[in-house]
Amino acid sequence: MRGEIIATGTELVTGRTADQNARYAARRLHEVSLPVAAITIVGDDVAMLREVLALALTRSRFVLVTGGLGPTEDDMTLPAAAAEFHLKLVQDQGTLQRLKEFLKKRGRSWNERYGRLALIPEGATLLDPGRGACGFSLKHQDTWFFFLPGVPHEMHSLFDNVVLPALIDLAGAGEIVTQRTLRFFGITEVELQNVVSELEAAPGVAIGYYPSFPETHLTLTARGEDQKKLDAVLDRLTRALSLKVGEVLLGPEEGTLEELVGLRLKETGFRLAVAESCTGGLICHRVTNVPGASDYFMGGVVTYSNQAKIDLLKVPEGLLHARGAVSAETAQAMALGVREVFRADIGLSVTGIAGPTGGTPEKPVGTVYIGLATPQGVEARHHLFHGGREQIKTLTAQTALNWLRQELHHAQGLSRH
Amino acid sequence: MRGEIIATGTELVTGRTADQNARYAARRLHEVSLPVAAITIVGDDVAMLREVLALALTRSRFVLVTGGLGPTEDDMTLPAAAAEFHLKLVQDQGTLQRLKEFLKKRGRSWNERYGRLALIPEGATLLDPGRGACGFSLKHQDTWFFFLPGVPHEMHSLFDNVVLPALIDLAGAGEIVTQRTLRFFGITEVELQNVVSELEAAPGVAIGYYPSFPETHLTLTARGEDQKKLDAVLDRLTRALSLKVGEVLLGPEEGTLEELVGLRLKETGFRLAVAESCTGGLICHRVTNVPGASDYFMGGVVTYSNQAKIDLLKVPEGLLHARGAVSAETAQAMALGVREVFRADIGLSVTGIAGPTGGTPEKPVGTVYIGLATPQGVEARHHLFHGGREQIKTLTAQTALNWLRQELHHAQGLSRH
Repeated sequence: MRGEIIATGTELVTGRTADQNARYAARRLHEVSLPVAAITIVGDDVAMLREVLALALTRSRFVLVTGGLGPTEDDMTLPAAAAEFHLKLVQDQGTLQRLKEFLKKRGRSWNERYGRLALIPEGATLLDPGRGACGFSLKHQDTWFFFLPGVPHEMHSLFDNVVLPALIDLAGAGEIVTQRTLRFFGITEVELQNVVSELEAAPGVAIGYYPSFPETHLTLTARGEDQKKLDAVLDRLTRALSLKVGEVLLGPEEGTLEELVGLRLKETGFRLAVAESCTGGLICHRVTNVPGASDYFMGGVVTYSNQAKIDLLKVPEGLLHARGAVSAETAQAMALGVREVFRADIGLSVTGIAGPTGGTPEKPVGTVYIGLATPQGVEARHHLFHGGREQIKTLTAQTALNWLRQELHHAQGLSRH
Repeated sequence: MRGEIIATGTELVTGRTADQNARYAARRLHEVSLPVAAITIVGDDVAMLREVLALALTRSRFVLVTGGLGPTEDDMTLPAAAAEFHLKLVQDQGTLQRLKEFLKKRGRSWNERYGRLALIPEGATLLDPGRGACGFSLKHQDTWFFFLPGVPHEMHSLFDNVVLPALIDLAGAGEIVTQRTLRFFGITEVELQNVVSELEAAPGVAIGYYPSFPETHLTLTARGEDQKKLDAVLDRLTRALSLKVGEVLLGPEEGTLEELVGLRLKETGFRLAVAESCTGGLICHRVTNVPGASDYFMGGVVTYSNQAKIDLLKVPEGLLHARGAVSAETAQAMALGVREVFRADIGLSVTGIAGPTGGTPEKPVGTVYIGLATPQGVEARHHLFHGGREQIKTLTAQTALNWLRQELHHAQGLSRH
C-alpha cells in the first residue's frame, strides 16, 4: 500500500522553518510497517499544490497533506484540492457553531475570514468532529487523502488518534500493533544499540532509536494477532533491557522525568524545595509542569548573585569566599538552606557555569555541582557538561532530576507516611 | 528560473533523521532570490529515484540532488540517474588516484567498493576536482543537475562554494531580495491580516503569517534591484504597522522577548527580581536563557505555598487570608517583597491558577494576577488565560515579560545611570 506525505507552507520550502509534521508521520508510519515512498514539501502556491496532489493521486493509495488549512489568504490547500479534484466546498455547520461559541467565550468578535475554517469538500469526513480541530479525510478515486493542520501539536495529536488507526485498519487484516517507548538518559544511541544486539532475539519486534535531547528514546513495536502475547513479549524485552542498562532506563513507566519524580514524591510523602543558580528556574519550571505538583513542591529560589545565596539560603559568607559559589560545599549549603527555608524534606540545589562567559581554567564553562539534602544527610556531585548555554541548563536540570528520582526510588522504605 | 531539491536517503523518508541539506540549500537559495518550488524526499530506491528525476527534468531548470553517492549498496543515486538519462558511467582517474593515496595514508587496503566513489556520468563536471569530495554537475536537456553528498558539512561546503555561485551566474541579472520578520504578541493571525489589509499597498512586497505560540510572526519579503529602496519600503511598512497595532509589535528589533527585556534592563541600569507562583520558574528560566543575564537579573523565588509567600516575600498573612493568594493585592505584595529581598530595582510577580484543578466560579482556571513594582510604584493587572496548564504558564510568562518590556520602554528616561 504505497503512501506519501505532502507538507505545505512557504516557510518550509524557503527553509525558514523545519518540517515537524511530515517527519513525525513518516517515523510513526515506518514503525507500523506502513512506510511512505516520498515526502514532498511545497509552498502556499495553488498551481504547485495542484500538481503534487494530481501526482499523488496517480501513484499512492494514501496521502497525508499537512498545513494550509488556516483562515488567512496564504492558506491554499483547500482551494487547490477543490480545484484539482473538482470538489464543491461546503461549510460544516457544527464547526461553524463551535467556532462562534469559542470566539464569543474569548471575547473576540466574529469575522468573515473565520468562516474559511469551517469549509470542507463535500463528502469529506471531519477527523475530529467533537472538538472541531481542522482536518478531514476524503476518498478520491482509489486514494485516501488525509488533510491535517500544520500546527505541530494539533497535527501530531490528530495523526496519532485518528489517522494512524485508520491507516492501520485500511492496511487490513486486523493485525494488532502494540508499541512502547522506553526513555533513557545517560547512554548514547550507539551504546544502546550494542546492548540491544546482545539481547535474545524477539521475532516480530521492530526496534527504533531516536535521540530526543537530552534523552534517548527507543521504541519497541510488536505485531501479531494476540494482544496478550504481544504485551508479554514487550514486557520480557523491557525487563531484559532494564537488567542490562540499570538506572539509565527512566521508564518503563510512561511519563516524563518530572512526572516520575512527582510519582515518587507522592509515594514517599516527601516535600521538595529547589535552589537554582545556573539553571535559572528550569528545574522549578519542569517540576511545576506536572499537574498536582503543589502537593509535594514547596517552592524554589533562583539565586544568581552571591548576596542572594547568603540572604535567602543562609549560605555562610566565609564559605562562599573560601570555596567559591561553584563548589561542592556551596551546593550542599544551598540544598540544606532551601530545605530549611521552605520547611521541606528534600532540598535539591545546582550551582555552576552555564556560559558562554564565566569559565576559568580550574572551573571551565559547564562545571556544575548538584547538591541533595534528604532526611539521611547531604551530598554533592560534580559534573562537567558540554554545549551551549541552553544545553548546559538542560543537561544540568535533567541530571539533577534524575539523581532525585534515583534517590527517591531507594528511599521508598523511608517514607514519611 | 524554477528549481527544486531532491533529498535521498531511507533514513530521511522513514523519519529517523531530520533533513539538514535540503532545508539549508532552500534557505540560502531563498535569500538570493532563487527560491525552490519543491523539496522531495525519497528513499534509496532506484525506481522512485528515477521517477522523481524524470519529473524534475520536465519541470525545473535547476535541480539539486543530495545523498546516495557513497560506496555502499544502498547508495542508489548514480545508478538511478544513469538509467533514467541513459548516461554512461566512467571512472574519473584523478579521483581514483586520490582515493588510493588517501586509503594508503590511513593504512587501509583497497577494496573494489571504493571504485564506485570515482564513478561519474560521462560529460559531468566534478564540483571539487582538487580535493576529491564526491559531487558533480551535469546539464541534461535544458536542466542543470547538481549531485551533492549527503554528509551535511560536505554538502554545505560544496553548496556554498561551488553550487550557489554557479546558480547565481546562471540566473543572471542579480535581483535583490530583502526579508524582515516582525514578531507580535497579543494579536491573532486574522486580526493581523485585517490590519495589514488596511495598509497602503506596497507593490512587490510579499507578506507571510506564521503562528509561533504564543507569538505571531509576519515576514515581509521585498524584491527589486536597489537595496536602499527595498529597505526604505520595508521601513515604511514596519512603521505603518507599528502605528496601527501599537505595543503588540515586539520588534522591529531582532531577538526574543527576553532578549529585548535584557537590552532594556541594560539600557536603564535597573536590576530585576522575579516572584513566581503559577508559572513555577518559567519566567526566571526565560530571563536566564539570555547570556549575560547575571548583569541585571538578581534572582527569583518560586512560592507555591502560602507559607513561602509569607516567609520569603513578607506577604502579610492577614492579606493572604482576606484577599487570597490569587489576588491583585497579593501580586503587589509579592512584587514589592521580591524587590526588597533581592535588593533589586524592579520586582515582577505572578500569582494565578494554572490548572487543571484549583479553579472556582469566581476565580476559574487561567485567572492570573501580574504585579510590577518599580521605583515609581506598584501595580497589578488581572488576566484570564485559556488552555492547558503549560499553555497558561507560557501565556502568563509571556504577558509578564511583555508588560515589563513596555514599562522599561517608557521608563528609559528614568534610568539609574
